[in-house]
Amino acid sequence: MEILRANEPLARYLAARRAGEYLAFVPTMGALHDGHGACVAKARAVAKARVLCSIFVNPTQFGPSEDVDRYPRTLDADLAKLDAWGCDAVYVPAVHDLYPEPQHAWVTVDEVAEPLDGRFRPGHFRGVATVVAKLFHLVRADVAVFGQKDAQQALVIRAMVRQLAFPVKLKLARTVRERDGLAMSSRNAYLSPPERTTAVALWRALSAGKAALEAGEREARAVERAAADVVQDAGIDRVDYVELRRAHDLSALERAEGRAILALAAWVGSARLIDNMVFDIQGRRVESDVALFDDDE
Amino acid sequence: MEILRANEPLARYLAARRAGEYLAFVPTMGALHDGHGACVAKARAVAKARVLCSIFVNPTQFGPSEDVDRYPRTLDADLAKLDAWGCDAVYVPAVHDLYPEPQHAWVTVDEVAEPLDGRFRPGHFRGVATVVAKLFHLVRADVAVFGQKDAQQALVIRAMVRQLAFPVKLKLARTVRERDGLAMSSRNAYLSPPERTTAVALWRALSAGKAALEAGEREARAVERAAADVVQDAGIDRVDYVELRRAHDLSALERAEGRAILALAAWVGSARLIDNMVFDIQGRRVESDVALFDDDE
Repeated sequence: MEILRANEPLARYLAARRAGEYLAFVPTMGALHDGHGACVAKARAVAKARVLCSIFVNPTQFGPSEDVDRYPRTLDADLAKLDAWGCDAVYVPAVHDLYPEPQHAWVTVDEVAEPLDGRFRPGHFRGVATVVAKLFHLVRADVAVFGQKDAQQALVIRAMVRQLAFPVKLKLARTVRERDGLAMSSRNAYLSPPERTTAVALWRALSAGKAALEAGEREARAVERAAADVVQDAGIDRVDYVELRRAHDLSALERAEGRAILALAAWVGSARLIDNMVFDIQGRRVESDVALFDDDE
Repeated sequence: MEILRANEPLARYLAARRAGEYLAFVPTMGALHDGHGACVAKARAVAKARVLCSIFVNPTQFGPSEDVDRYPRTLDADLAKLDAWGCDAVYVPAVHDLYPEPQHAWVTVDEVAEPLDGRFRPGHFRGVATVVAKLFHLVRADVAVFGQKDAQQALVIRAMVRQLAFPVKLKLARTVRERDGLAMSSRNAYLSPPERTTAVALWRALSAGKAALEAGEREARAVERAAADVVQDAGIDRVDYVELRRAHDLSALERAEGRAILALAAWVGSARLIDNMVFDIQGRRVESDVALFDDDE
């Protein structure tokens, strides 16, 4: 696996590719876990693609009250994992490679970036879209893979790619969970053992929402309540949101119908955790764990 | 010259290019004049480049009080000019090719987009940057050429390209003037014969600013006043701005020194006209009509 620690080696690596060779890209912030592994596996499944990952903790997507310096950094372990997963190259820029000067050009997405995390992390998705735009321009991949656990992020990137005509296809990797259901996340590293036990309530909350839908409940507010009650009963008192929304654009929903996402964000100790479950609801039938959107072909 | 009237023929044209062939791109809104001709000439001067122009009147850069439908459209004459200038292909998309759905993803540039036209045309540069980003992604040119007459636009695009790492080089074409000095502009078509006579005051105003600088004036406000007086004396009473600013970022200037731009916008009848002159001021020495920024190499 080639390790490219600046823009210059990245450019040389890309220039040396054979013409017509397909490149699949997995951007990450490091602190890798099997959720990232699923993204790399999805990238490797692209026929004959070379897989390039990036590791970059992007400062512009952290708010002033969020501590970018505290974000877990585990570079040696990350490189070993990427190598084991069959990644061909990894781009590990420094901050000055991506932000050589104060940033004045931004990619902003309205509508899909506004609810949920958009309300609680002002500027977050602007930072995400901007750094992904830069990475897309530097890497010029044919396909890029994002994780469904960060569902709103994936929808923001999808809006950016479609509406600004980025020449890249998007694919989604499924959420990978611990044995007890907790979604894998780099931020789980912040959890103490008792908090780790508490955190599984997020998964149980999504499961309660699913059970309500399967029992025939179609009022969105009632489904949300069923999920929120589980979080509250677990003693988690700082809940940013528990909301059922349309999956394709995160617009508000009164009655559950079609593809819908139950998304939540809550604080367990000092960790802000997010999780979601996507459903396809057709009359009485409820399908769970469906894709947020279909892969671009 | 190939005429590509939608995204599909454009994509086919680009796919048929020889590997390694250089592509130079000149985006326009049509109603072409010799100022555009200078852009095409600059594009043709790029060694061995094929030259592709676009003609698209972009609705998102017109404000609610500005009439996009009134913008002059002269397609047949435009195509004849492009052919005569040696353009290899022209992309003429319809609005639904570039805006197939309501737009929610934008490129915004702060700082350089904020003064001058940014104050008087809110949202204008967001629309410009967004459509140019789309065009860059669709055309994937190696180099793009913009006119120095739209100086702030060129600086906004330059900030976008540099700060979002677009893989394209930028070049500037000089402003082309009528025999009496009026800068060529598609909007000159709005002028009645007496208004056309009045409009030359914009050029004379810039020349007065130049004369003040050459006479040793270094107070920015005094240089602006020398120019503004000429506009006022010509009976032009709706002046949006006459300002001397630093050329590289349009920041405010108290004393003229280094590369500076004298930029103005004024209404002559129903036409809002802009013009500018760029100076390089080193001590007593004043060089006029210099480039706003150096070409990317």
